[in-house]
Amino acid sequence: MDIQQLEGLVKQMTLEEKIAQLLQLTAHFHEGADNEGQVTGPMEEMGITEPMVTASGSVLGLSGAQAVIDVQQSYLKKSRLGIPLMFMADVVHGFKTIFPIPLAIGCSWDLELAEKSAEIAAKESAVSGIHVTFAPMVDLVRDPRWGRVMETTGEDPYLNGLFARAFVKGYQGNDLKEETDRLAACVKHFAAYGAPEGGRDYNTVNMSERQLREQYLPAYKAALDEGCEMVMTSFNTVDGIPATGNEKLMRGILRDEWGFEGVLISDWASIREMIAHGAAEDDREAAYRAIRAGVDIEMMTPCYVRHLPELIEGGKVDEALIDEAVLRILRLKNKLGLFENPLRAADPEREKEILFCEEHRSVSYELAAKSSVLLKNNGVLPLQAGANVALIGPFAQSNDILGWWSCVGEKEDAAPLAAALKERFDGTLAVSEGCGIDSMTPDQLEAALETARNADIVVLALGEESAMSGEGGSRTDIRLPQAQLELVKWLKKLGKPMAAVLFNGRPLDLHGIFDEADAVLEAWFPGSEGGAAIADILLGRVNPSGRLTMSFPQSVGQVPVYYNHFNTGRPMDPSKSDERYVSKYIDSPNDPLLPFGFGLSYTKFEYGGLTLSSGEMKAGEPVTVQVKVTNTGERAGVETVQLYVRDVAGEVVRPLRELKGFVQLELQPGESKTATFTLTEEQLRYHHSDLGFSSDPGAFQVFVGSNSRDTLEASFRLA
Amino acid sequence: MDIQQLEGLVKQMTLEEKIAQLLQLTAHFHEGADNEGQVTGPMEEMGITEPMVTASGSVLGLSGAQAVIDVQQSYLKKSRLGIPLMFMADVVHGFKTIFPIPLAIGCSWDLELAEKSAEIAAKESAVSGIHVTFAPMVDLVRDPRWGRVMETTGEDPYLNGLFARAFVKGYQGNDLKEETDRLAACVKHFAAYGAPEGGRDYNTVNMSERQLREQYLPAYKAALDEGCEMVMTSFNTVDGIPATGNEKLMRGILRDEWGFEGVLISDWASIREMIAHGAAEDDREAAYRAIRAGVDIEMMTPCYVRHLPELIEGGKVDEALIDEAVLRILRLKNKLGLFENPLRAADPEREKEILFCEEHRSVSYELAAKSSVLLKNNGVLPLQAGANVALIGPFAQSNDILGWWSCVGEKEDAAPLAAALKERFDGTLAVSEGCGIDSMTPDQLEAALETARNADIVVLALGEESAMSGEGGSRTDIRLPQAQLELVKWLKKLGKPMAAVLFNGRPLDLHGIFDEADAVLEAWFPGSEGGAAIADILLGRVNPSGRLTMSFPQSVGQVPVYYNHFNTGRPMDPSKSDERYVSKYIDSPNDPLLPFGFGLSYTKFEYGGLTLSSGEMKAGEPVTVQVKVTNTGERAGVETVQLYVRDVAGEVVRPLRELKGFVQLELQPGESKTATFTLTEEQLRYHHSDLGFSSDPGAFQVFVGSNSRDTLEASFRLA
Repeated sequence: MDIQQLEGLVKQMTLEEKIAQLLQLTAHFHEGADNEGQVTGPMEEMGITEPMVTASGSVLGLSGAQAVIDVQQSYLKKSRLGIPLMFMADVVHGFKTIFPIPLAIGCSWDLELAEKSAEIAAKESAVSGIHVTFAPMVDLVRDPRWGRVMETTGEDPYLNGLFARAFVKGYQGNDLKEETDRLAACVKHFAAYGAPEGGRDYNTVNMSERQLREQYLPAYKAALDEGCEMVMTSFNTVDGIPATGNEKLMRGILRDEWGFEGVLISDWASIREMIAHGAAEDDREAAYRAIRAGVDIEMMTPCYVRHLPELIEGGKVDEALIDEAVLRILRLKNKLGLFENPLRAADPEREKEILFCEEHRSVSYELAAKSSVLLKNNGVLPLQAGANVALIGPFAQSNDILGWWSCVGEKEDAAPLAAALKERFDGTLAVSEGCGIDSMTPDQLEAALETARNADIVVLALGEESAMSGEGGSRTDIRLPQAQLELVKWLKKLGKPMAAVLFNGRPLDLHGIFDEADAVLEAWFPGSEGGAAIADILLGRVNPSGRLTMSFPQSVGQVPVYYNHFNTGRPMDPSKSDERYVSKYIDSPNDPLLPFGFGLSYTKFEYGGLTLSSGEMKAGEPVTVQVKVTNTGERAGVETVQLYVRDVAGEVVRPLRELKGFVQLELQPGESKTATFTLTEEQLRYHHSDLGFSSDPGAFQVFVGSNSRDTLEASFRLA
Repeated sequence: MDIQQLEGLVKQMTLEEKIAQLLQLTAHFHEGADNEGQVTGPMEEMGITEPMVTASGSVLGLSGAQAVIDVQQSYLKKSRLGIPLMFMADVVHGFKTIFPIPLAIGCSWDLELAEKSAEIAAKESAVSGIHVTFAPMVDLVRDPRWGRVMETTGEDPYLNGLFARAFVKGYQGNDLKEETDRLAACVKHFAAYGAPEGGRDYNTVNMSERQLREQYLPAYKAALDEGCEMVMTSFNTVDGIPATGNEKLMRGILRDEWGFEGVLISDWASIREMIAHGAAEDDREAAYRAIRAGVDIEMMTPCYVRHLPELIEGGKVDEALIDEAVLRILRLKNKLGLFENPLRAADPEREKEILFCEEHRSVSYELAAKSSVLLKNNGVLPLQAGANVALIGPFAQSNDILGWWSCVGEKEDAAPLAAALKERFDGTLAVSEGCGIDSMTPDQLEAALETARNADIVVLALGEESAMSGEGGSRTDIRLPQAQLELVKWLKKLGKPMAAVLFNGRPLDLHGIFDEADAVLEAWFPGSEGGAAIADILLGRVNPSGRLTMSFPQSVGQVPVYYNHFNTGRPMDPSKSDERYVSKYIDSPNDPLLPFGFGLSYTKFEYGGLTLSSGEMKAGEPVTVQVKVTNTGERAGVETVQLYVRDVAGEVVRPLRELKGFVQLELQPGESKTATFTLTEEQLRYHHSDLGFSSDPGAFQVFVGSNSRDTLEASFRLA
């Protein structure tokens, strides 16, 4: 259809039909879904009637080709105007083939592979009947207490923006009508959901508009620049007004300033939740605020369907707002080709063929291998051929390695580390649980000690169970659970070399493991093929190359700690750490335990010869930054060369370091390559106090290195 | 002098003389001070010349009547125009007679006594030659990691505002010229210094202007409404610009909007610190930004004296800005009567008579008695007459109970708890140290256990040494130091009743003491007479009545936690704490261990009969709130009856509870009194998203009770 036809369709619709397009319910409310019978109660409670469901515009969370086909067909039979349903779901890091959690994907710094993972997730979802994924989640995060840090790519606005684009590209491809194996993407959660106070999920967010624009908005904007079709509102308030009813944010910034013409959807129940927030007295006021803010689809609450009719009749809301919203929804359905092809890619046969296929699994393996981060290594890794290894810990034989939001992925499909290692290892491998996630019996401990005593080296497999992160998974204590720390203490007494593999969804306070173990490998939740990937790293078949995209704090008492912070007026000089009146803690370093960008390799890289093409930058005349990197070790490896910049004096204070670029170099032993970056005046712009976006003339510092801490340094002036 | 004369004086001054008035140095730079010889180096380093010192406008940190007289007389001899120096110092909670730390004073909820303490501090300082105190510090705080929480009255904007006014009144009296025993007050730190990220001193502050106005600015404004003569800038940035160079904050809000015509002073070196912040490339730019923002006095750095001349000559800065600043300084000198009486109250004889006199000490005693907060009591307190008591802990015999910023107060003048208790107690008292602040020897432990074994009850005296809070005293771990927790564990095993007295400067994570002890008394740093006051509380001669003005968190991982927070869209229902998708932690309650307003008594109070004069409030028609409070225990006691309000639905979200009033009732056993509050529409106003200050019609809830958690409830509608 063309736009005239779509507009014509809107004109044919009754007010009730239009408002129903704005409603999104789970499949349970629809005929043809498995448990249709069960929703009578909820429907009545919600004040949702059969005709509302019959005319509703989209369905949430249903997948499976046949189930979707059934619902769509049954729906279309009853639809007066033949407008198909859209099926949407949370496909976050894979559909059936589960990729590492997004925080891990971020640590790969591999945009192509990230895009590929989204493409595969799209394909598996599409053949299972889904049209839209509620992804990518691109919220900037700085507080590891928050469970949903696992769902983002980390603490850097620039890097998050690159990943946002890669994911959108991977999900959407070039043409949603032609490429039916792609999904429309929905970037979330607009805005600043990643900054809840105290790291407690859904909690209050507060920051200045300048900070919001500077750090939090760029990744959403990047997704939209890539053509992302949808945006989801966040649960939190933005400067005191729930995002879902925030006119300034939604009409002002998103629509008017950025020109977003796609569909804006609430998060689950977030329109009605304005009442709990204290921003609306009742459903009616909630509906009023949301539609004025420009929210098109209401997910799972009935404020629109029940109250928009009276708000329009009473003249409080202009029907034109509804028409706009409906048109945006129909336009997306049309882009997806649903009017011509309402079943789209849904296909029970292809579903069987494609889901969790070898090809997809191999990409998941590759991403897991690239996203694991070697945090420490005193030379005990990789494991020596023929060694006698004791693999100990609750994650040795656990398949709880998919992480939260793993869609229809099944743990049973994931090989635990023990099995993967056994398959590959030519040495002796003994396995013992040692303890549960947060419990230990004397028998477990004794068995573990016995296993360890007979080994040359102990490999610990420790971590958080997946429910300890993800949505609703905020923790005040970000250490490994006590039982596991206890286990480490006991094993440490044996005096054997120890390497630890960590499975978890957030930066942890590594107290109790980092000092004790000789090597620490951060495996995150590595997905369906994580066992194999980690085993290959342990055995040296893969040289780890992941780099942290979120700082690891010294302790929860130091939170938030992030690399791109400000200097303060009294920066601490670490060589004079006993000075009192400087910005510091009396009981902890200021720096994180492990900085942004950090990660080791089985080889070593040396940096030298940092040069700038000029000591002065003029508008239109970029400065070229070059550095020579040499692999001085004995294995091939991949180095992620990182470029940071500091604006020495700005109208508003600037971060000590800001990532401006990176390149990944593959280097053979002894090989040198030159990394080249081009730095332009545009990259030095930032939001001033008047919110204007421009650069300030004056001094700049340039840092190039292996992570945000260990760098070479140069400087130039911007004319 | 009148204003014309002052203006005339400015006209007679050379540019150099005017700029020198803007300079404040420590006394070391002046002849007559003890260690004048030592400053040649620093003077040269700073580029400060003899003529600059000779003409400088004020002196920092010198006290002692004779010393001040010497410097003033020597200065005036050299002064071409006979403009006297002003002497300023940090008189924060007493001068020689030390009162409890401000956080403790806040817990008294006793505004009269707070005023009295300021009056006494002023008197002692004034006779010792001081003219201006850098107090009150009224920064709102929510993060107990920050060391300077000890220096404020807590987490509530309204209560902080009341204390701000009380302190200003106490310092300044009614007429600084007539009442030479008073000081000019300088409210600090403008603005929002109390919100450093991560609780790390001097760290970045970020919040929206709406939040700044709503929560952080009111207490400064209250001080100014009371006529506070000076304002000090804060070290931090406010929305990315250091406060000291923040035109919007200083010219915009402070001067233009609020009409402040007094003197604005930088904090120590904070003009030059704009370079470290990255808001100025050099001293010259720092001077430029500060003078444009309206900072009159530069403390301890030479940016003004060295660079204002060239900035004016070069036309970058209008000399009128300097004239304004000088006039403000001269006006204050004139208000203080210094032109007629340059020595003012400085008097070595009166100094000997007044400092630390009985009368002053008795007020300090009273304030200490009223600011201690009984946090828990299973009936073991007060101590029984004739009991056999073991007093154990590093604070048993410590006189480190004055707290940070205790001016010229001397620890040696403070009686430790053991001595005070011994003096008063008719039972048996054995004393043992048990451990140091953060160390324990086997001998110490054994002696303590032995002491405890022979006693009926153990009284623990534990805490932080004073350097663990205060400026530069931020901690990431807010528990009692490990050695003390260890001591508690060992003593607990003896199975004796235990009461703990805590000396500390911040809300602590009381894990390891609150559950173990039968009673916990929060003594804070109670000042010169703290030993006596605490002893009298332990013995029941004083019935404790203090109430927390800052929440005690469950742990540092829960920080920030404060009573006047928002509801979120998914508030946790504590009865359904296993629901996942609500705003909570998976490992901690949301509520603090002890809420704002909390404090026990040796008697009990019951609340009943909460009534509102009307269910509807109209503009100009206040609602009267009444509640009956009965002392149902067996001792006389003081109850602080607290009134909170919630605006159920606002244009922006409103706190769950906001303190709107309180009354202290003294009640004999069995006695009842009615507390009456008047609630007006004005009290319901708040800053909307457009920063307008108004109320919203609709539903309001009213809570009255003993603290912010335990309340009776009623409601009304605002028409």
